[in-house]
Amino acid sequence: MIQVRDSDSEEIVWVAHAMADAARKAILPHFRQFGLTAENKISEGFDPVTVADRAGEKVMREILARYRPQDGIVGEEFGTTSGISGLTWVLDPIDGTRGFISGTPTWGVLIAVSTEDGPVFGVVDQPYVGERFVGGYGIAEVSGPQGVRSLKTRNINSLSDATLFTTFPEVGTPDERKKFEAVARQVRLTRYGMDCYAYALIAAGQVDLVIEAGLNSYDIQAPIAVIEAAGGKVTNWQGRAAHDGGQVLAAANSEIHAKALRWLSDT
Amino acid sequence: MIQVRDSDSEEIVWVAHAMADAARKAILPHFRQFGLTAENKISEGFDPVTVADRAGEKVMREILARYRPQDGIVGEEFGTTSGISGLTWVLDPIDGTRGFISGTPTWGVLIAVSTEDGPVFGVVDQPYVGERFVGGYGIAEVSGPQGVRSLKTRNINSLSDATLFTTFPEVGTPDERKKFEAVARQVRLTRYGMDCYAYALIAAGQVDLVIEAGLNSYDIQAPIAVIEAAGGKVTNWQGRAAHDGGQVLAAANSEIHAKALRWLSDT
Repeated sequence: MIQVRDSDSEEIVWVAHAMADAARKAILPHFRQFGLTAENKISEGFDPVTVADRAGEKVMREILARYRPQDGIVGEEFGTTSGISGLTWVLDPIDGTRGFISGTPTWGVLIAVSTEDGPVFGVVDQPYVGERFVGGYGIAEVSGPQGVRSLKTRNINSLSDATLFTTFPEVGTPDERKKFEAVARQVRLTRYGMDCYAYALIAAGQVDLVIEAGLNSYDIQAPIAVIEAAGGKVTNWQGRAAHDGGQVLAAANSEIHAKALRWLSDT
Repeated sequence: MIQVRDSDSEEIVWVAHAMADAARKAILPHFRQFGLTAENKISEGFDPVTVADRAGEKVMREILARYRPQDGIVGEEFGTTSGISGLTWVLDPIDGTRGFISGTPTWGVLIAVSTEDGPVFGVVDQPYVGERFVGGYGIAEVSGPQGVRSLKTRNINSLSDATLFTTFPEVGTPDERKKFEAVARQVRLTRYGMDCYAYALIAAGQVDLVIEAGLNSYDIQAPIAVIEAAGGKVTNWQGRAAHDGGQVLAAANSEIHAKALRWLSDT
């Protein structure tokens, strides 16, 4: 396991904020513009990449090149850059591109710092709302329209009291959808369409569960760090580490996590 | 038809902004608080009313009592007050209470001014984002994080290029869901969970269609005014006036409206 000295973690936090600030500035001018270019990255289905996405990752990589050249980078847009420190920055400049091109304030800039064991620090930033959720190195806080507040997940421990989010009702494969719906039938309220913002809402103590499938590592590493710093638990649907992506179960606490996992796990 | 003099419409616009300002101030302190009280208004299903909802309508009614005592009021929380002017203020202090209790910035304060023929002026306000969409009396604009901008719907006229929103995938009855899904199969992108914010996104030229069912008049009157001021068209699923609620089809323009209506109408 990589040991990060305190002075190093302070620099990492500072650099992450600088990156999120720069990404906001690069991305926001493209939000809600008419005639936004949306290419299809995958020929089947709908996974648009915008000029904004690339602009956001570019400015974040420039800051890393200057201040953290020793670290590796995995980015959605520009791939992998190897490092020598044992730390890797995992970047998704616009998580929730479908939300972005629809004008909803549900997309986010995701920044994580990881060792080989998974993320140790993360930022989920919503530039339009001006809201930033940060977790790791002893920090768990949100800054935004209501000032700076501590993040703390809530302690609802019964599925019948829980609020569950996912981004779209299909979830993934027909079998993945079926498992999601098995959990949805147990909970008080199921909501859709929040992209990465749903994970931030677990950390903020507003919702209890997010269940998704088909994620990439850069979609989930920052949410893992923020949620765990706020007291929550994130695994895959078999209860194992989720930082490589795939099927994800994010929960406000261990109890509600265990109760939801029963409906998702194959065992 | 009621004739509103220019000086009167100026006052109405001013009063509506004052009401939206007051509602923001009354409601925001309750947003994202822990232990928010959510009563069940309807014993079956989940329709929470919060302290914030009542506080929001109360301050709006106080402003009307002072400046527009001649007008009628229909409010979600405190019912109907009759007037003598022929104008009625239609108020929903928190549209999207499920979004509100989940912490999402998708709920809104809805304010409409109506004659018996329907809404002539409307405000859709999102207090957390600090964003206000206004339409009617020659105004069509949004103020918020990007300053003040004109509202204008977009001119996509093919369903295969369109983005469609609804709040939850069940939509309404099984038959209503089936009709919604018939449209959803034609469009490029279907998204969920935006509450009244989806209507504002039509006015802002970001999305093309919103289809919902089971609405109340106070859920839809403000969106109608804002969308029509921005160039869009809102009817029920039979192509008739939607200001009494029920099934609603909101569209960016007449062409895309007609194309979606074919799948929803009984004729």
